[in-house]
Amino acid sequence: MIKKLDELAALVEGVVLGDGDVTVTGVTNIEDAGEQDITFAVPPHLEKAARCRAAAVIIPDSVTEYSKPAIRVANPRIAFTKLLELFTPPLQVERKVHPAAVVAPTAILGQNVAVMPCAVIADHAVIGDNTVIYPHTYIGQEAVIGQDTVLYPSVTVRERCRIGNRNIIHSGAVIGSDGFGFVTIGGEHRKVPQVGNVVIEDDVEIGANVTVDRATTGSTVVKRGTKVDNLVHIAHNVVIGEHCYLTAQTGIAGSTKVGNYVTFAGQSGSNGHITIGDHCVFAAKAGVTGDVPAGSFYAGFPARPHQEWLRAAVGMYKVNDIMKKVRELERRLAELEPK
Amino acid sequence: MIKKLDELAALVEGVVLGDGDVTVTGVTNIEDAGEQDITFAVPPHLEKAARCRAAAVIIPDSVTEYSKPAIRVANPRIAFTKLLELFTPPLQVERKVHPAAVVAPTAILGQNVAVMPCAVIADHAVIGDNTVIYPHTYIGQEAVIGQDTVLYPSVTVRERCRIGNRNIIHSGAVIGSDGFGFVTIGGEHRKVPQVGNVVIEDDVEIGANVTVDRATTGSTVVKRGTKVDNLVHIAHNVVIGEHCYLTAQTGIAGSTKVGNYVTFAGQSGSNGHITIGDHCVFAAKAGVTGDVPAGSFYAGFPARPHQEWLRAAVGMYKVNDIMKKVRELERRLAELEPK
Amino acid sequence: MIKKLDELAALVEGVVLGDGDVTVTGVTNIEDAGEQDITFAVPPHLEKAARCRAAAVIIPDSVTEYSKPAIRVANPRIAFTKLLELFTPPLQVERKVHPAAVVAPTAILGQNVAVMPCAVIADHAVIGDNTVIYPHTYIGQEAVIGQDTVLYPSVTVRERCRIGNRNIIHSGAVIGSDGFGFVTIGGEHRKVPQVGNVVIEDDVEIGANVTVDRATTGSTVVKRGTKVDNLVHIAHNVVIGEHCYLTAQTGIAGSTKVGNYVTFAGQSGSNGHITIGDHCVFAAKAGVTGDVPAGSFYAGFPARPHQEWLRAAVGMYKVNDIMKKVRELERRLAELEPK
Repeated sequence: MIKKLDELAALVEGVVLGDGDVTVTGVTNIEDAGEQDITFAVPPHLEKAARCRAAAVIIPDSVTEYSKPAIRVANPRIAFTKLLELFTPPLQVERKVHPAAVVAPTAILGQNVAVMPCAVIADHAVIGDNTVIYPHTYIGQEAVIGQDTVLYPSVTVRERCRIGNRNIIHSGAVIGSDGFGFVTIGGEHRKVPQVGNVVIEDDVEIGANVTVDRATTGSTVVKRGTKVDNLVHIAHNVVIGEHCYLTAQTGIAGSTKVGNYVTFAGQSGSNGHITIGDHCVFAAKAGVTGDVPAGSFYAGFPARPHQEWLRAAVGMYKVNDIMKKVRELERRLAELEPK
Repeated sequence: MIKKLDELAALVEGVVLGDGDVTVTGVTNIEDAGEQDITFAVPPHLEKAARCRAAAVIIPDSVTEYSKPAIRVANPRIAFTKLLELFTPPLQVERKVHPAAVVAPTAILGQNVAVMPCAVIADHAVIGDNTVIYPHTYIGQEAVIGQDTVLYPSVTVRERCRIGNRNIIHSGAVIGSDGFGFVTIGGEHRKVPQVGNVVIEDDVEIGANVTVDRATTGSTVVKRGTKVDNLVHIAHNVVIGEHCYLTAQTGIAGSTKVGNYVTFAGQSGSNGHITIGDHCVFAAKAGVTGDVPAGSFYAGFPARPHQEWLRAAVGMYKVNDIMKKVRELERRLAELEPK
Repeated sequence: MIKKLDELAALVEGVVLGDGDVTVTGVTNIEDAGEQDITFAVPPHLEKAARCRAAAVIIPDSVTEYSKPAIRVANPRIAFTKLLELFTPPLQVERKVHPAAVVAPTAILGQNVAVMPCAVIADHAVIGDNTVIYPHTYIGQEAVIGQDTVLYPSVTVRERCRIGNRNIIHSGAVIGSDGFGFVTIGGEHRKVPQVGNVVIEDDVEIGANVTVDRATTGSTVVKRGTKVDNLVHIAHNVVIGEHCYLTAQTGIAGSTKVGNYVTFAGQSGSNGHITIGDHCVFAAKAGVTGDVPAGSFYAGFPARPHQEWLRAAVGMYKVNDIMKKVRELERRLAELEPK
């Protein structure tokens, strides 16, 4: 594909700065850009991009002079995303059931579905139109998968779970494993049957090797628009709100309710049976131990407001100095005191 | 299934409070209960359950008046578990080797075994009676799987590992991957062959995407009755005692010996080559760095007795105030001191 | 296999102490050693090994008297590794494409390759000589796998990723899942296409259930000789240097560049977009938040030099005592001050 800079600017609703006739054949990052690529830059990377090999650069519209042909836009990252979509069409996938796939006769497949070799679809499962199921993926009994969804290799969707439309489920993700529930009788941990399911709404992305446990009764829910990174654990009966980010290696314990637009940074976690309000942010490695009001930015373990935590985390390193000062004060004071 | 409350009370050895003729067709949690369901409640949820739609509620026998038909029992959670088992029989599984499974001619299968499509059983593996092997599960050469065990989709059991009776191994679990052992020779990390195996005793549950590494020599062991949650890592030559709980995302480093009835809460971890006594509890995110005596309750990193850690975790937030007080003391003291 | 101690000593370039005619049929650890096994010991385990059942012990050459037949060597661990290799040859693997494997007609397979049942190799993938692909492993379109590499069961290598020579990839590892990249437009998180790949160089080992995300553009790279333990997460556009150790459950956020010979201990992590110098060591659970100079040993979160962190971690536990002392000082000072 060959495009002139003018054409690309029109596509991303930007304004050309410099030569609009420059030709572009690809889009990539600053370091890898070749002489026919376009890249993007925001401060503090504008200078570096100006010196790279790229033919042109997408820059913020606040920049009015630039040493390379450029497209000025309100949000370079969004424009870059649009050009990535333009220059790199999705992989071609043959829309058929491969003869080495195993589809139960009672399963129902929509139009234009791809089921690749060694995928297994169990009895009474339902697969929506245009959905793509890669090799080694298992769809359990009575599970329902929506339309335009992609399940990459080795995904497990256990019985009766429901996956929405336009979902992307990455390799090794397990949807609907049993919740971790036991009662101890006479020193033995006896399993509490986990007879609920998992419901994943529309436009959700689930990362590689994520685990989402089925509910004891009822449903574990991940609401629409939420994005879950790799190796995240979501326990039974958890509800994750809409448009959340759960970054890699986060863990949410059982029955916790998370609001909308909540971000958990990497390796953070939440206690079970708590409620987290909308628009909260938890820093990396944070451990949430109780209810959190909407709009909070917390860090540490037990998690506290980020500014307080930051001061405390620095304060830790002052303790030994303080101890010295206190000893000195004790000495000086003893000298003043009547013997 | 339809049952009268009187019948259910007999089953769970409880006492009916109110109308014993009420009919029940299902069992679920308070929020999801419909008009023919039974649910359970313990303080502080008794009021909420009384107002929910359920036909009846299982309550502690200490409660003697209730506004809904109820069953009074010593332990409502145990009674609830029994009713879950009653109302939700396990999934029907066809007891046969599916033609799309691949079973080595030298493998030995017990009576009444299910091997689902795309499961692969390697040479000289042994599978016990009544065991169920889901699709995409791999049983390696000379591995031995006990009776009445369930291996969900995409489990890997590597060569010569031994899995006991009545085990449940969830999807994506890897049993017997190589331990992480190297010797560095001339700047290159050379692999130490990991020629031991993994032994998992009876009545163990292993969560989704758990990894249990094979021993360098000898065995990595998980003893009977232990329950392992999702995404836990158990390194080579570790021994986990009986009836332990390893909660999600816990990691146990190499050669550590864990006693019986030990609980690791979520995202906790242990150093290698240490010994942990029976009945220890480690709080979420704890990091154990040395031997721990039996009966300890530890938290933090390096892990210390929980009460000490709790005071220290609060103390961190006082450091800046203390610093201010110390400066004030210095000022006041200087005024008193002879110039 | 039966060997005399003299023969083994020659093999490991060591010196026999005691009877060189002792016969050895196996090699294992101190606890499991039987009467015809050899084991190894370094301080403080020399005494224990002397009392164990083993026929002989590999010991450091600094030890000149020993109560059992022994081999003295410079590095007992290296000698032990050589004997493990001698006594435990790798599993026999049939070098063929199993009829239940699914190999695209356009895929290219080298000499002496094993492709086991239910492995799936997609269009235009290339597999090097002597490489072994276990069941349920997926090699995506145009992916390239080097020579003498082993991919254990249920590995996913997504399209266009490149795996080097002499690699070992453990079960459940996912190479090339999409990076976690989104732009938020009107409250919806829109996916940034992840069109780069993953490049894993030679002599790398990747643990079970590890995830390595493909780059947004360009490549996520793991350089030669690096060893990655189980359940590690490597985000998009990360570069891991040569000969590193990433211990279990470590997470490296996007675009971070890690030098050579860097060690991340268990459950540690790094922020994204930072640079870490050669020969750094990060303690367990450390969280790196900014650039780190070569040769650093850091701990804690935010990570700081290990010695500082150690003092601070102890200091935390003194805060309440300090507070008491400060109150006492305030009281004493008030008594001295003029009313």
